[in-house]
Amino acid sequence: MNGADALVDTLLAGGVDVCFANPGTSEMHFVAALDKRPAMRCVLGLFEGVVTGAADGYARMADKPAATLMHLGPGLANGLANVHNARRANSPMLNIVGDHATYHLAHDAPLTSDIETLARPMSHWVRTTKRAEDVSADAAAAIAEARRAPGRIATLILPADAAWNEAPSRIATPAPPAPRRKVDAAHIKAAVAAIRSGKRTTLMLSNVALRADALETASRIAQATGVRLIAQQSNARTERGAGRVAIERVPYPVHQALDALKDVEQLIAIGAKPPVAFFAYPGKPSVMTPPGCHIQQLAEPDDDLGHALAWLADELGVAKSLKPELNPRKNLPLPTGPLNQDAISRAVAALMPEHAIVCDESVSSGRNFFSYTHGAAPHDYLQLTGGAIGLGLPLAVGAAIACPDRKIISLQADGSGMYTNQALWTEARETLDIVTIIFSNRAYAILRHEFASVGAGRPGHNASRMLDIDEPALDWVKIAAGMGVEAVRATTAEEFTKALQGAAGRRGPFLIEAVL
Amino acid sequence: MNGADALVDTLLAGGVDVCFANPGTSEMHFVAALDKRPAMRCVLGLFEGVVTGAADGYARMADKPAATLMHLGPGLANGLANVHNARRANSPMLNIVGDHATYHLAHDAPLTSDIETLARPMSHWVRTTKRAEDVSADAAAAIAEARRAPGRIATLILPADAAWNEAPSRIATPAPPAPRRKVDAAHIKAAVAAIRSGKRTTLMLSNVALRADALETASRIAQATGVRLIAQQSNARTERGAGRVAIERVPYPVHQALDALKDVEQLIAIGAKPPVAFFAYPGKPSVMTPPGCHIQQLAEPDDDLGHALAWLADELGVAKSLKPELNPRKNLPLPTGPLNQDAISRAVAALMPEHAIVCDESVSSGRNFFSYTHGAAPHDYLQLTGGAIGLGLPLAVGAAIACPDRKIISLQADGSGMYTNQALWTEARETLDIVTIIFSNRAYAILRHEFASVGAGRPGHNASRMLDIDEPALDWVKIAAGMGVEAVRATTAEEFTKALQGAAGRRGPFLIEAVL
Repeated sequence: MNGADALVDTLLAGGVDVCFANPGTSEMHFVAALDKRPAMRCVLGLFEGVVTGAADGYARMADKPAATLMHLGPGLANGLANVHNARRANSPMLNIVGDHATYHLAHDAPLTSDIETLARPMSHWVRTTKRAEDVSADAAAAIAEARRAPGRIATLILPADAAWNEAPSRIATPAPPAPRRKVDAAHIKAAVAAIRSGKRTTLMLSNVALRADALETASRIAQATGVRLIAQQSNARTERGAGRVAIERVPYPVHQALDALKDVEQLIAIGAKPPVAFFAYPGKPSVMTPPGCHIQQLAEPDDDLGHALAWLADELGVAKSLKPELNPRKNLPLPTGPLNQDAISRAVAALMPEHAIVCDESVSSGRNFFSYTHGAAPHDYLQLTGGAIGLGLPLAVGAAIACPDRKIISLQADGSGMYTNQALWTEARETLDIVTIIFSNRAYAILRHEFASVGAGRPGHNASRMLDIDEPALDWVKIAAGMGVEAVRATTAEEFTKALQGAAGRRGPFLIEAVL
Repeated sequence: MNGADALVDTLLAGGVDVCFANPGTSEMHFVAALDKRPAMRCVLGLFEGVVTGAADGYARMADKPAATLMHLGPGLANGLANVHNARRANSPMLNIVGDHATYHLAHDAPLTSDIETLARPMSHWVRTTKRAEDVSADAAAAIAEARRAPGRIATLILPADAAWNEAPSRIATPAPPAPRRKVDAAHIKAAVAAIRSGKRTTLMLSNVALRADALETASRIAQATGVRLIAQQSNARTERGAGRVAIERVPYPVHQALDALKDVEQLIAIGAKPPVAFFAYPGKPSVMTPPGCHIQQLAEPDDDLGHALAWLADELGVAKSLKPELNPRKNLPLPTGPLNQDAISRAVAALMPEHAIVCDESVSSGRNFFSYTHGAAPHDYLQLTGGAIGLGLPLAVGAAIACPDRKIISLQADGSGMYTNQALWTEARETLDIVTIIFSNRAYAILRHEFASVGAGRPGHNASRMLDIDEPALDWVKIAAGMGVEAVRATTAEEFTKALQGAAGRRGPFLIEAVL
């Protein structure tokens, strides 16, 4: 048994049985070890951003880490943007990054770089395993780190000789994940006092407080006390739709966020970060709550949020018999006429199957999605959490691997979809049940708004050349077909609806280019 | 005038008049500043790997830096793999990375990350400009750093408020590039003594020692003294073909490299790194020269290599009248029959126009290219220098922007081409004169060799799923068409030749998928 064998055995012992990979020469022993262990599912991404984004999507739906496999510093660098998103989503992730043999590093061969330094900004934990005999213990430590609530990024760097040298056959067993921490009684007491003070109070939720059960508890508190619920602007996973609790999010545009929060006197954060602007703008505030608003962090993302909400409900004396307010099922008519964002949201709301998983990287195009889908079939809603575009298509891949029996609906802006378009190939290779909807507006539309908002007026030649992607227009039907994914173009609501009906009634990857 | 205006004016004052960009919200003031200055050519890449790879290609051909524009830490991360390649190519490059406004960082908004730490492993120089009044001086310093011989990576981080705040209108003038350093007389003396010792001596060249003039001097030395010439395995730019000096490179496979160097008693490196294995392998050496071989570093990459060679020739008493040995023009017959690597090399050798620029990321598929093209039309040959795949297509973009009157021939492996396929869109948008040849073997062929070389036998299910990319087969004709580039597929030598003849006879981007 060599170090690579020990690594894969340790992964499997720790319940890590999916590996999203783009290996290189220095990882060939690891590939050989995977080859001997069919219990490990290996999923190839044709670019590392696909690998890490898929691991994020997998973790959000499986509530456990996948492994990634990447090739030295540049391979890791290619994956870092989506590791950043995963970190912001509190997703557990175990990155394995191959490196040169330890003794080869001194020769500064062309692919040599400082992998630890590259890994650190996006990882909670980084370690280089220098000897084959340490591989299993280090991998077990990495798994334990990745599984620490609320989910952490562990990056294990594996030099080629640590993989190929002989290792002891004793495999370390990763420590089981510790239960989430219970919040302090003092925090609950303070929240109760705040809510009872009569001031206008908002409970701001994120992380697992947006799962159905926790949201029901929050809804009961809201009904009993009159507090308002709001979700963080961007969340890893929200369970929503018919039979679930409706919750709005803090809007993205600064003026809308300020407006939505203007009356809040007290904000109690439960697994959420108090709201700040996504970007700073001249003359606009960074903090979205009004001056003088009192902010209490009742529970951190790694706390047991369901328990905290239940405890809070008890202390507030919320009657056990009080039912949460759940969305009734609402059947919207199918849209007709011109194809626009509203028509797309309506069609998805009407046609989405039960327990679909919606992966949303529609950026500015999909901001109205919530308003149409509170009464749609119950579904999970996964967002871009860290603002690093290029997550959507990989996220859908990972969610589909985690939940093979559920339909994935991937809402994808065209500009950001181009970042990791290689994910379409993995969809085809793995026959994943994903409908991708490309919002084809042929521009970085969000940047057109931002350009106007800096007071620069109408974009001239140089600015237009950087904000528009219409010359030439991307043909997503061809791009998808080039990677083995069947696709159609829709230019009217009727065409779109027909395409979505077709896609909903079959399994496997399908792409609809919605020309806006 | 704000900080962004000052930055663009400083760039133009420093002769930096091309900006490869993928901007975001925090860079909108910079985009507005570019918009007011048509002297700056702005080239959009739909992914940051395109942006940095194009800046590398531009620098190699223009012998001066372009600017890049990227969006916070994740945008930079997406570009880092090709910054790594540029660093290994000693290309000058000036990265401008937008960041949140300085006062906004404390709020840890979703896109916040430690940009300086991310930048450092791939940059020679990193600075964050905190105030608008410092922008011009910092930009001038960055330009000076980028232009320092042999070419360096300067990364300037520009917080949004440093861009939007008022700046003084006085623009700093970047220091002109210092001339390359002359080598020490002692180094020349030692080299003369070594060459005269009668031991078997090899001059190993890289960097600007591979430009036509320097190579001619080296050739004259070789003829006068019997030393052998060899180039580094991978080089930023080699001037070669008919009327130029023939030089072989150190081969990539370890056994071939050891064999090529087995008789070397003395190696004199001129702008080159003494040869080491690209990767380590169990039981194989890291150093490619034989034990006991004496290695002298006559000149570093930042030295004046042409001067060093001329001085060495003088000290050796090489007769002024001695002519270099130049390749005669050799007209190869067009290939017929099955399409394979040899047929492609033959066809390119026969059909390449004068002063084409060949960008080679054919990886394992193109290793025979040199042997067929010593007598082809004179051309520049640009390689993957840092081993981070995904450089080829962007490199071609940058070379085409630098040399709009020259035909670019982009030799591209399929697996690595997928990494930055978005470059095809920039080819179409900018109507670049690039013929892309995809070596479509539908596998990470190099890894199949490597898998065998670790003794793992025949790949099983999991290994094949990570080494082959044939299920589904990529359709490059569709992918290219989807991004606006006309393309055809060739499956025989005749089809390939016909397609290449067509491409050679027209201007603008064209792609040939060569199915191997």
